[in-house]
Amino acid sequence: MKPDLIEKLAVESDSRIVMLVMDGLGDIPASGHGTPLQEATTPNLDKLAAEGVLGQFDPIAPGITPGSGPAHLGLFGYDPVENNVGRGILSAFGIGFDLTEKDVAARINFCTLDSNGNVTDRRAGRISDDENRRICEKIKSKLRTPAGIEFFLETESQHRGLLVIRGNDLSDQIADTDPQQTGVPTREPKPLAAEADHTSKVLMEILQQVRQILSDEEKANMILLRGYSGFKQLPSMQKRFGVKACAIAEYPMYRGLATLVGMTVQPPYTDFDDAIAVLKSKWKEFTFFFLHVKKTDSYGEDGNFESKKQVIEDVDKVIVPGIMAMKPDVLIVTGDHSTPWSMKAHSWHPTPVLLHSRLVRRDKSERFSEIECQTGGLGRLPLVNLMPIALSCAGKLAKFGA
Amino acid sequence: MKPDLIEKLAVESDSRIVMLVMDGLGDIPASGHGTPLQEATTPNLDKLAAEGVLGQFDPIAPGITPGSGPAHLGLFGYDPVENNVGRGILSAFGIGFDLTEKDVAARINFCTLDSNGNVTDRRAGRISDDENRRICEKIKSKLRTPAGIEFFLETESQHRGLLVIRGNDLSDQIADTDPQQTGVPTREPKPLAAEADHTSKVLMEILQQVRQILSDEEKANMILLRGYSGFKQLPSMQKRFGVKACAIAEYPMYRGLATLVGMTVQPPYTDFDDAIAVLKSKWKEFTFFFLHVKKTDSYGEDGNFESKKQVIEDVDKVIVPGIMAMKPDVLIVTGDHSTPWSMKAHSWHPTPVLLHSRLVRRDKSERFSEIECQTGGLGRLPLVNLMPIALSCAGKLAKFGA
Repeated sequence: MKPDLIEKLAVESDSRIVMLVMDGLGDIPASGHGTPLQEATTPNLDKLAAEGVLGQFDPIAPGITPGSGPAHLGLFGYDPVENNVGRGILSAFGIGFDLTEKDVAARINFCTLDSNGNVTDRRAGRISDDENRRICEKIKSKLRTPAGIEFFLETESQHRGLLVIRGNDLSDQIADTDPQQTGVPTREPKPLAAEADHTSKVLMEILQQVRQILSDEEKANMILLRGYSGFKQLPSMQKRFGVKACAIAEYPMYRGLATLVGMTVQPPYTDFDDAIAVLKSKWKEFTFFFLHVKKTDSYGEDGNFESKKQVIEDVDKVIVPGIMAMKPDVLIVTGDHSTPWSMKAHSWHPTPVLLHSRLVRRDKSERFSEIECQTGGLGRLPLVNLMPIALSCAGKLAKFGA
Repeated sequence: MKPDLIEKLAVESDSRIVMLVMDGLGDIPASGHGTPLQEATTPNLDKLAAEGVLGQFDPIAPGITPGSGPAHLGLFGYDPVENNVGRGILSAFGIGFDLTEKDVAARINFCTLDSNGNVTDRRAGRISDDENRRICEKIKSKLRTPAGIEFFLETESQHRGLLVIRGNDLSDQIADTDPQQTGVPTREPKPLAAEADHTSKVLMEILQQVRQILSDEEKANMILLRGYSGFKQLPSMQKRFGVKACAIAEYPMYRGLATLVGMTVQPPYTDFDDAIAVLKSKWKEFTFFFLHVKKTDSYGEDGNFESKKQVIEDVDKVIVPGIMAMKPDVLIVTGDHSTPWSMKAHSWHPTPVLLHSRLVRRDKSERFSEIECQTGGLGRLPLVNLMPIALSCAGKLAKFGA
């Protein structure tokens, strides 16, 4: 569906939509287990499933494994390929760095160079977070910043970090310096477009200094840059869908993604009761609520079946009744993608969706699970279609044509 | 999904994918029978169905009946509309004619003209294959080929054949000479683009001679040309998906289609045991195997329920265990399209798909049939999506976005 078409049909209304996202919720049966969602005891979700309609949605396209960035853009109703944002931005989101329009952000790896300047380890022996922080401080204290430029360097974890330069007329059209292999030198941050000449020179100067500053380090004696991106603001959900959107999320990455589409982001919640308290306190002010739960994904990545299942049960026990007490016109319960615990990684399997509203065409499902979703009434659809369906259930989309 | 996106995500790996295609497998219930696949005894396929996931896939789009060419392109992961190849090429494939880049191929019909030069029978009374061969020889022995041109004329069957001209700077942008109706003269092979002027003159000269050479024939006294196409090589599966692809197929058409996407084509197999022997002997050398069985389609076209069912049972007995003995990481069992025996023709019904891999999201299906596929976990998807899903199950696609 073309975004401008949805924009034209969107009408503001007082109805309320809640989108509850259990990150990485989708899973597959493995090792004699059903999926965590299948095996979890979820009386509240099951009641909603019986009253609502289920389906399975592809975050990007069938067979494509999504990162969290594009998967959430799909959830929010933005074409995830057209609106794909750079990894630098997502790194900045991930650590809660406030990007501005004058910034170019890049992901960094600390790496090891030999005496000939060839990369011998692209991850600098996976140094500790503390070591990472020490080296970042060392660089920041010694670097003479090029004229007119502000410089930021932030630890992510292990060998990973974020580099941001702030200034006038900067461009993200710069070649990665990571050679993606060992035994060769780092690459130059060459301009990929004429407007990036200045940025290239700035980065070149910074990298020469960094090489000098780190020359006495054993492991992390250089940095590699990739995934440059300037700050990008997408058209807001208010503009596109006519909703006043509020984000309730613990983790910086998802708070950043919500910012990207113009949501008002609440402070991180402390526990599920707190998340519901925030929802209640903001209920009158907003018409769309994005409530994000991270732990389902984290335990999936850890390969922890029991804990992933437990999070789902806790959500069922605390969050679901908390939301339903507010009588939303539409409740969506889903994940952004699948993170099967047996794979310890994101996967391509479609994400299970439960849609609850007075106006859904109820299907035969009696429980909420990936397997029920396979035969659910919504069928199998691209994830970007979920928002328009929810908007219509909430009376927020006008008729197309006469 | 944009093909360049898949190309960017594809990673080579040592895992093995087998795509077993029973041509025209899909069917519909008729005359008190279930479908041949439903009624066949297929314990091996049923076991795979219970362990795997089913779905129904549209070769082109819902409601569209495909030819073998586009249906196979969809199977191989190529958009069947964008990459549609001319009928001339498919005719050449069908009779095993080796096209070169200097060739333009066209399908021919022998036809009957009256004394005024009007077409009275577009199929020349459906002459016999022998008669077709005799007339082809007659033309070839008498034709004075235009300078710089090689000329080929090959019998297909009845009134149908293949005409190929080979030379420099030939173009397939030529108008059909078949008027598609009787009572009017044949059309001229007019150029549809400036670069086709030379080709048009060559064909004009050839057709004038053919008219002369066949003037003493009663039925087949002229030929009609249509579906011109130059040789086209699509980007190879190796380039697009990072797989080393091997084709094991009896029939020239499918061997030709496999060539088109850069597969290494094995000599025609003699029976199913031989097909499996070839698979085993090539197992180490390749990472993707296309194994094609023609007879399901042939018996469908013949309206022969029992024999279509029998072929499926033979595949279940010999080919399926033969493949599984090699422990492929992913096995796809499907058709290229449906050929209902009660219709004696290709149809638009989606093709049933069985996907078997350690990493599928298993569904509730316990048997492999079109009817089980209707509620299978893969849902209903365009056939071009099957390859990306299989590639991901085999660990051959990287994540999109961070």
